[in-house]
Formats: sequence, structure tokens, C-alpha cells
Amino acid sequence: MNWILVIKIIASLNAVLGATMLVPLLIALYDQSGDITAFAIALPLTLLVNGLAYLLTRKEESDLSHREGFLTVTLAWVSACFFSSLPFYFAGTFGGFTNAYFEAVSGLTTTGSTILTDVGSMPRATLFWRSIIQWYGGMGIIVLSLAVLPLLGVGGMQIFKAEVPGPTADKIQPRVRDTALLLWKVYLLLTVMECLLLWAGGFNLFDSICHSFTTLATGGFGTRSDSLMSVGPVIEMTVTLFMFLAGVNFTLHYLALTGRARAYLKDGEFRVYLSIVVLGTLVLALILRVTETYNDIFTALRYAVFQTLALVTTTGYNSADFKLWEVTAPLATMILFLFMFTGGMAGSTAGGIKVVRIWLLLKHGYRELFRLIHPRAVRHVKVGGKVVGENVLDAVVGFIVLYMLLFVIATMILSLYGHDFVTSVSAVASCIGNIGPGLGTVGPVSNFNHLQDVVKWVLVFCMVLGRLEIYTVLLLLVPEFWKK
Amino acid sequence: MNWILVIKIIASLNAVLGATMLVPLLIALYDQSGDITAFAIALPLTLLVNGLAYLLTRKEESDLSHREGFLTVTLAWVSACFFSSLPFYFAGTFGGFTNAYFEAVSGLTTTGSTILTDVGSMPRATLFWRSIIQWYGGMGIIVLSLAVLPLLGVGGMQIFKAEVPGPTADKIQPRVRDTALLLWKVYLLLTVMECLLLWAGGFNLFDSICHSFTTLATGGFGTRSDSLMSVGPVIEMTVTLFMFLAGVNFTLHYLALTGRARAYLKDGEFRVYLSIVVLGTLVLALILRVTETYNDIFTALRYAVFQTLALVTTTGYNSADFKLWEVTAPLATMILFLFMFTGGMAGSTAGGIKVVRIWLLLKHGYRELFRLIHPRAVRHVKVGGKVVGENVLDAVVGFIVLYMLLFVIATMILSLYGHDFVTSVSAVASCIGNIGPGLGTVGPVSNFNHLQDVVKWVLVFCMVLGRLEIYTVLLLLVPEFWKK
Repeated sequence: MNWILVIKIIASLNAVLGATMLVPLLIALYDQSGDITAFAIALPLTLLVNGLAYLLTRKEESDLSHREGFLTVTLAWVSACFFSSLPFYFAGTFGGFTNAYFEAVSGLTTTGSTILTDVGSMPRATLFWRSIIQWYGGMGIIVLSLAVLPLLGVGGMQIFKAEVPGPTADKIQPRVRDTALLLWKVYLLLTVMECLLLWAGGFNLFDSICHSFTTLATGGFGTRSDSLMSVGPVIEMTVTLFMFLAGVNFTLHYLALTGRARAYLKDGEFRVYLSIVVLGTLVLALILRVTETYNDIFTALRYAVFQTLALVTTTGYNSADFKLWEVTAPLATMILFLFMFTGGMAGSTAGGIKVVRIWLLLKHGYRELFRLIHPRAVRHVKVGGKVVGENVLDAVVGFIVLYMLLFVIATMILSLYGHDFVTSVSAVASCIGNIGPGLGTVGPVSNFNHLQDVVKWVLVFCMVLGRLEIYTVLLLLVPEFWKK
Repeated sequence: MNWILVIKIIASLNAVLGATMLVPLLIALYDQSGDITAFAIALPLTLLVNGLAYLLTRKEESDLSHREGFLTVTLAWVSACFFSSLPFYFAGTFGGFTNAYFEAVSGLTTTGSTILTDVGSMPRATLFWRSIIQWYGGMGIIVLSLAVLPLLGVGGMQIFKAEVPGPTADKIQPRVRDTALLLWKVYLLLTVMECLLLWAGGFNLFDSICHSFTTLATGGFGTRSDSLMSVGPVIEMTVTLFMFLAGVNFTLHYLALTGRARAYLKDGEFRVYLSIVVLGTLVLALILRVTETYNDIFTALRYAVFQTLALVTTTGYNSADFKLWEVTAPLATMILFLFMFTGGMAGSTAGGIKVVRIWLLLKHGYRELFRLIHPRAVRHVKVGGKVVGENVLDAVVGFIVLYMLLFVIATMILSLYGHDFVTSVSAVASCIGNIGPGLGTVGPVSNFNHLQDVVKWVLVFCMVLGRLEIYTVLLLLVPEFWKK
């Protein structure tokens, strides 16, 4: 294992994070808010540690091996979470390191679960920091899922190998660099577009920036105590639109922006994603109307489309307290719960299992029906007309098995600590899927503050594993990985 | 499709069912109970219809094709449920045909969910009929899972192809007949043994017979209003032991009874099954003790072992109202809920996903970890030292996908009809898994009577699909199946 190379990459990433702290520091100084010291300590500390580490390792120029790739990804996230948590920790308003780290992990994994009991009362610098680490996390995940994981062969992501734009170099680094640069531009462009629309729609510039950061990242951290329950229709529609876009494979946005807009509809996974969103919205609206949860179909549709996208794309914003639906419309709650597993498209910033994996799994199951009728016939599973290799199918199955296994084990631990069925199940589903709110005592108008520290660490583990497609982290725990 | 042959087989099975009605008729006559007329009408009606059908088709002597095999299995169950429901229907005490059919399906699929609000108040003839149809259902399922489905290649059951005793003929019928006969004897022997032990333990002969019928079938229909909550320790231990045995692959019992007792421990699935039961019991007992649900460890152990086996083997008896555990020990409830999916061994009378399938799925997931470390290495999944074919793994994955899909769809329908999360989820899990009681409003001391008729039919569908390994029924709904 080439530790020097691994440290070099991680240190340079964290140095960027440290330099970014200058922005919230300036905001804090301008506002003369209570978190000045927090950023004034965290910034030099982060820069010093990582700058020093980079200087000591910068001469290392070799290529990353597969194993070093896995290690770098996990360590990069875990260490970035640590440095991101420092301002929260030093601010003293989060209540201890566990809470600070939980909040940072929830940020960088684009989950959006918070331990803050009143978001609106926090200083702007802290709110900005929460938003921008989600934005970084979202960018990180696009690069990871489109450029790194396909090469490493994790969880069926290799299905996208050929579709990634940019030169098809064999070595990881140049390829990652080139792909990352293209996607970074798309990500930035969409963020700026949303920010301008939100600003035009009536948000102040600060709220516009923060919300465009967390929408594109499908993160869901907000700046207001009631998430998005009391904003005007323009803001709501803008956020709805950009949640939808953030749940799409960013390769497709790249193709569209370079004049190949038909790429969207040509993509099989996109069509399924679109169908889920459209059908989900219609069904949800119908239920909310029929059950008299809302008195007219337009209000029902408005909440339905927002909440469908908030959960399918794993953003986790709320425009309504959908916990109330548990009573008025149990089926709506059930559908929302299912959306917690769907996720957006692979190659988007969304978490969850991902549309393509669920789709492949269903096709896999359906194929067995035909095998029984024609035992000797060879039948391939196809996506968008292309044959999907059996190794990809195996990887998808393996991924979903581990996802559900992690879900079950973590849920049991939460139950062990006395949490009721609905809270345990939904808190874990929300964290593995990087969504944000759950149901029960961690519902839309509640938060994760009241959970025990052990439970918070379990959920931290779930957020990181869910975000890094499980295998990336789990591999490091297998002794076989370290042999050679 | 050779309909004449299909009808001949089904008619002969149903004729046996009709002839069996003589026993409850005699009981009813002896007791002079209110259900005399019910059996007096149902018996001749069943015999007449099926006898006539048999006489018209008995000359047909050809072999069953694969497709006819699937059709026969499904139609046999559905029609047997119909004729079994007649005594319930004519008795008038069940409240309409939907209830009568629900009860019959719950019987023949060995589920044990009941629509009766007070079991103990029913006449003995009706109680006997409920028990014996479960016993028939249990026998049917052993033959199906060990002799028919492996040949048809359903859901990975072909893994047992070589292990079934008896001559290895290629044609379905002679093989099924021979295997069935061997297993029938084992099943009968175990039933008689349990019956004698229950009798010796203090049950009257009638209760002993009925309970040994429904234990071996892992059905769970009882004769008392409070299931087994108020019986002595000998009865409880006997039932516990025979639930365990009923959850074991009957091939192993056959081998043991013919002097090869080491077959148990040599069998990989048996070792996993045993581990689940032992570990499940210990963990459950610990939780029940630590949470002070029970004041001493022996009481906790006693309830833990019983409830573990009642759910893992999908029998569904209760020795305690485990719904109360939802409040005192949420983790215990969570574990019981997981047990609802485990199921016993393949080739037992238990329902659920089955131990071997879950085990194979986990191995499948684990293998992917190694693939990532050694992308080029070929690694087979093994069970008991033998390599499991990729087609078997695919079949297992396909089965579990459809199982979960059915679970999700049915749960959503229950939610649609206004049932809360826990009730919907557990009622469906219980019916697909052929268990019996659920949680929420269908908990151990409740019943399924209050559900809407539509919901009852959905659950009937779940029970039949779950019992017939899903594919067997689902195949008939694919247009491709009927082409040729």
C-alpha cells in the first residue's frame, strides 16, 4: 500500500476544504457573530495539518492501484468529515464532538439529517459552512460514481464505464481528473442557474446561495427552522425543478449542454426515473386528495411533487410536515418510505439504492419466469438496448444484499436503544439513503439531537457506507484486502 | 395443454379431501353440534363433483409436461381450498364465502391466520376440519418442494435435486409418487409421536390429534381461544420440539429414520437453521430479561425458544402475547419481524423465504467483496462443500426479488385500505410467509376478521403465492406460458 500517495491526495483535498473556511470566517467577521473564533481556529488548523502533510508527500508521483483507490476514497471522506466538523465543534453550540461530527458527516455525505434543534437561530457563517460542505460532498459523489467506482467495479457501477465522457485512459488518475473537470463545470453551472432563479424568486442572496448548494447536492440542509414549508410558489417550483435535475446522471446534463439533449430520453434509466417521479407524484396527489388530507387537487399535487422529489432524489427538504400523513393517509407514508430506498439515477448526487439497480434487479427476477418456461433459452438482461453482463448483475445483487443487511443490522441496534419500530426503521433508511428526515421521532419537524451518542455513531457509519456505495468502506474491513 | 390429465389429478386429490369429511361428520353427529348439516352437504357435494370429474378423465395416462406440472400444482391448491371451505361456508358461523375461503386457504397453505373471533367456542367437527386440512397442506408442500419443484426448477429448489431419496426417474409422475410415499410415512410417524406425547402430557385425545396435525404442518391452527398461552410445561416443550422438527427438511428425517442420523449435522442448511434457532433464542431471552419483560431468565428463555420457533418455522402458535413486547422490548419485536422472513429449511413444511435461500444470498453478496479484491479470480458459492450453480443463484435471487415485490405491493394495498404501517407490513409478511399472526391489529390475541373483504382476498393471494413459491402461480399469469 502506497500510503504516501494516499496521504498526498487526501491532504490536498482537505487543504481546499481548509481554504474554503475563509468564506464563513469573513461572513462571521462581517456579522460579528459568535462563531468567529470557531472558524478562526479551524481554518489555520486544517490548513496547517494538511499543508504540512502535502509538503511532505508531494514528490510522490506514482499511479493509484485499485486497492489504494478504495482506501483513498474512504479516508478522504472520513478525514474531510473530521476537518469539516471542527468549526461546529469549536463553536460550542452543537454540544460535543459527536454532534459536530454527525452534522459534518450529514453534510459531506449530502444526507441532511441535523442535530440542530433550531436551524434558523444559527449564525450565517455556520449555516453557510453546512451548505458548502454538502455542495462539496455532492461534487465528490459525482466524480466518485462516474469516474472512480466504475473503474473499481463496485456494485454494478461498471455498467457506466463506456458512457463517461472524456478520454478513456486506463490509469485512474488522468481519467478521474478529466472527467471531474467536465462534470464540475456542469455542476457549477446548474448551481449558479438555481441561485439566480431563487434570488429572482424572492430569496435573499445568502439563502439563494445556500439552498442552491444543498439542492444540487441533494443534501437538504436549509437555513430556516421550518425547511421550505413557508416559501412562495416560485421558490418551491425552482427547488422542485432543480431537485429533479440533481437526481439525474450528470453525464446526461453534460451531453445536453454540449448539444446532445436527446441523450436524456435515449437513456433507459432516465426514462424509468422520470416515470417514477411522474407516477409517484400522481398517485401521491390522488391519495392526498381522496383522503381529504388536502381540500383541492392542486394543493395535493404541489405537495406530492415536492415530497416525491425530496425523497426520490434523497434531498430531504420538506414543504409539508408529511409525518401528519401517517394518520390521514397511511398509504402515502408507505409510498414515501419506499421512495427512501429508490434513490435517484446513478451518477447523480442522489443517494439510495439507485434507479438502475432496482430496475436491473426487477429485470433479473422477471427473467427467471422465462427461464422456467424455456429452460434452455439464453436470455440477457438489457438496459437501453445494450446487454448487461452477468458480472454487473451479480454486483448489483451483491450491493442490494449488503444494503439491506446493513439496514437490518443498524435498525436492530436502534431498537436495542429503545427506539420504536417506525423511528428505527426510518432513521436508518434515511441515513443509509442519505436522505435527511425520517418518520416517528426523527420526522420532518423533528431532528436527530435526542438520539443517544452510540446511535448517532451508528447512523454516521450508515451515512458514510451508504454514500460510498457500501463496498468501498466494507472492503477495508476484510483481512483479505490487506494481504499481499 | 393436456387439461384432461390435469383435471384427473386434481379430481382424485379433491376426492380424498371429500372422503376425509366423513371424520368431522361423524364427530358432529356424535356431538350433535350445529355443523352437522354443513358436513352433510359438503361431503357428498365434494365427492360427487370430483368423483364425476375423475370418472370422465381416468382413462388419460400420459405424462405431465413441465407446463402441466405448474398448472396442476396451482389448480390443485386453489380447488382444494374451495372444497375445504364448503363446510365453513355451509356452517354459517364464519360469515360469508370470503371468510370461509380465507379460513380454508389459511388452512391448506398452513398459514394459520384465522377470521374466527373465538376459536374455543367452535364445534369440535369444525376444529378438526381446520386441523386436518393444515395437515394435508403440510404433506402437500413437502412433496411439492422436494419432488415437484426441483424438477420444475423453481426458485433455486433444484439445489436439492440429487438429495431426494427414491429412484431418480426422469418422468415426473413415478418420481413424485415414490418420493411422496417415503415422506408421507415420515410425516405420519412424527405426527403420531407428537400426538402420543401431547396425550401423555395432559391434553385430551382430540386436542392432541389436532395440535399434532397443525404442528407438523407448521400451520398453527389451534382448538383453544388463547392458542397455547395456558398449557403446562410438558405440552409446551413437546410442541417446541416438534415445531423444530417440522422446520427441518424431511429428507433428513427420512435418512435419520433409516439409520443415517449423521445426515442432520452433515447438512449445511441444517447447521444454519440450528444456529438461527439457538442464537435467536438466546438473544431474545437476553433482551426479554434485560428489559424486565420477564423477571427471571428461565421464563424469558421459555418464551424466547417457543416464539423463535413459532416464527422461524412459520407455525404461528403463541405461548405469550408478544404484541406486548412492542412496548417493553422493541428490539424483540424487530427480531420476531425478521424471523417472519427467514422461514425454516427448504423441504420442510415451513413457509417464508427459507434458510437456504437467505444463506445463499448472503454468500452471493459476500463473494462480491472478493471479486473487488481479486477481479479475475473465479470463486464459487458453496453449500456443504458442494459448488452451487450460477443458475441456482440466479433462481434464488429471482425468487427473493419477487417475494419482496409481492410483499411491497400487497403492503401498499393494505395501507390503501387504511391500515397502519405495522399492521399492513406484518399482516402481509405473515400471510406470504404462511405464519399466522402478525403485529398491530392482527397480533397474537387478535384475528383477521375485521379486515375488509378486498384485503382478505389480497391476503388469500399472498398465502397461495407464498406457499407455492410464487413462481408456480405467477407463471400462469405470463402470456408466454400459454403460447405453443
